[in-house]
Amino acid sequence: MKEIKIGLLGLGNIGTGTYKTLEMNRDQIEGSVGAPVNIVRILEKDIDRDRGIEVPREKFVAKAEDIFEDPEIDIVIELLGGVEPAATLIESALRSGKHVVTANKAAVAANYHRLRKAAEEGGVQLRFEASVGGGIPVLTALTGCLQANRFSRVLGIVNGTTNYILDKMTTEGLSYDEVLKDAQAKGFAEADPTADVEGIDAANKLSILMALMFDHYVHPKDIPTKGITEVTAADIEDARSKNQLIKLIAYAERMEDGSIKYEVRPMRIIDTHPLSGVHREYNAVFVEGNAVGNLMFYGPGAGPLPTGSAVMGDVMEIAKTLV
Amino acid sequence: MKEIKIGLLGLGNIGTGTYKTLEMNRDQIEGSVGAPVNIVRILEKDIDRDRGIEVPREKFVAKAEDIFEDPEIDIVIELLGGVEPAATLIESALRSGKHVVTANKAAVAANYHRLRKAAEEGGVQLRFEASVGGGIPVLTALTGCLQANRFSRVLGIVNGTTNYILDKMTTEGLSYDEVLKDAQAKGFAEADPTADVEGIDAANKLSILMALMFDHYVHPKDIPTKGITEVTAADIEDARSKNQLIKLIAYAERMEDGSIKYEVRPMRIIDTHPLSGVHREYNAVFVEGNAVGNLMFYGPGAGPLPTGSAVMGDVMEIAKTLV
Repeated sequence: MKEIKIGLLGLGNIGTGTYKTLEMNRDQIEGSVGAPVNIVRILEKDIDRDRGIEVPREKFVAKAEDIFEDPEIDIVIELLGGVEPAATLIESALRSGKHVVTANKAAVAANYHRLRKAAEEGGVQLRFEASVGGGIPVLTALTGCLQANRFSRVLGIVNGTTNYILDKMTTEGLSYDEVLKDAQAKGFAEADPTADVEGIDAANKLSILMALMFDHYVHPKDIPTKGITEVTAADIEDARSKNQLIKLIAYAERMEDGSIKYEVRPMRIIDTHPLSGVHREYNAVFVEGNAVGNLMFYGPGAGPLPTGSAVMGDVMEIAKTLV
Repeated sequence: MKEIKIGLLGLGNIGTGTYKTLEMNRDQIEGSVGAPVNIVRILEKDIDRDRGIEVPREKFVAKAEDIFEDPEIDIVIELLGGVEPAATLIESALRSGKHVVTANKAAVAANYHRLRKAAEEGGVQLRFEASVGGGIPVLTALTGCLQANRFSRVLGIVNGTTNYILDKMTTEGLSYDEVLKDAQAKGFAEADPTADVEGIDAANKLSILMALMFDHYVHPKDIPTKGITEVTAADIEDARSKNQLIKLIAYAERMEDGSIKYEVRPMRIIDTHPLSGVHREYNAVFVEGNAVGNLMFYGPGAGPLPTGSAVMGDVMEIAKTLV
């Protein structure tokens, strides 16, 4: 019987969540795929860290080539994060004939055409459902079930850290600095929160959404982006007095002349809009299509297991074509 | 070049919406599929009705066999509604080697194993994304992106008529009878609203959700079902005083002993729950998976174009395997 063999790049938080998802639901995953599914090699320097999982030491390799040059490996999962060396490794894997699954929005957004081209030329799949909205199945829905639509608009709450901060400021009347400190203590914000609070992470995700929804790729650096660092308690109170909430929104719209308007910035949302009910670190993507009308996808936009869910979903879709 | 030829059973509201979706977005649909896509034959008695679309008269046929026995037709779309003769026609199409796409929850829920078996034996696909949640891409997400999860729970607002009535009763303090009359006048409730207000439609959808999420099929007649006809303005006011809303919920849960608990009935939802923000005729499906956590899919659960969007999405997925 064919065994699906996977090489994993990176065993950090998300890599560990993906490994756990496979271990936790192995029976169901293998039953559905119709074959054994195993992560057989892992590129990771930190072998000894306690991750709460048992990983046989012989799975660890020191060089990506040990994975790319192994003819038995069908699928590479890239979970290193960051643009480089991740993008170059994804491209190498694709050009080695490996299908690639990644959660890496920064690498995909900054190298969209280059990576798609490498997949096409390698005759393999590149899947990145987990890169936008974490566990929320939004990208595959937009390109699958909803593919008969012409999309006109997307409004996304696609960064959990900033939504957590704005939501806490709103519900508890606290200042940005107070909430940021609390969020860092609770693990909802990183020690260096720049990529989140300045809107860079949201711009990466908007770049990917626009490429898929409008077939219009814009490098994230070219997306006008304003974060939440200047949002004050007074702004939030003023919005509330008008029945509005302030949310960091990744926005893009196809205008009547066919051009695409896009930006990331704090926006006021009326409190009856479905996006206004997105609290704490949750994410949601609101889209408009010319046949379907208004839709919203809501769920956990980050975290090891939710991201692992999306990564393994992509892996299973590929695996089913290999059995 | 291969042309994808479709036979359509039924040109009522949903059939017309599907036809319109294809006409409206033909360039994009054919570009994505990589082949011309055409509805070439339509089983429909009412040829002369004004549907706001141009349908060449030669497409109309009087017998389903004219479609099933046409070797050029690849895909049959069934949009007749109701259990019979729809289920028998779906089965005949599958056994004639046609892929089938349907929006028909009643026929699928009442004949789940029979139709899946016919598809398997015919070596063809049976897709029914539009049968639950209308335009909301929920079924394909549950069986695709989310397939690495073990699901523990589903709470669905899966009937637009009853959500419209309960929402109006809540926001305007009106009685059930007053709102039902208004809903009928506005087209949100049928002249005979029994299937909706008694929860039968929701039970059909819950049957399909349970089969896909828990691999546990229950005939809709065996699902304990209570509709909304006995919900009073006083019930709604009492709920509101406790920060709750009353919603008709299709509920199923996998208990710790592995058994599945299920029912359709009006339930009280706390006003901070994501389902509490589902107003008017909108639908939403809230699910819990052991890796992903809590997710919600929100959107139009009915209507010609939203349903047409889901039907054409299924058609395109099949068409891509044929080109």
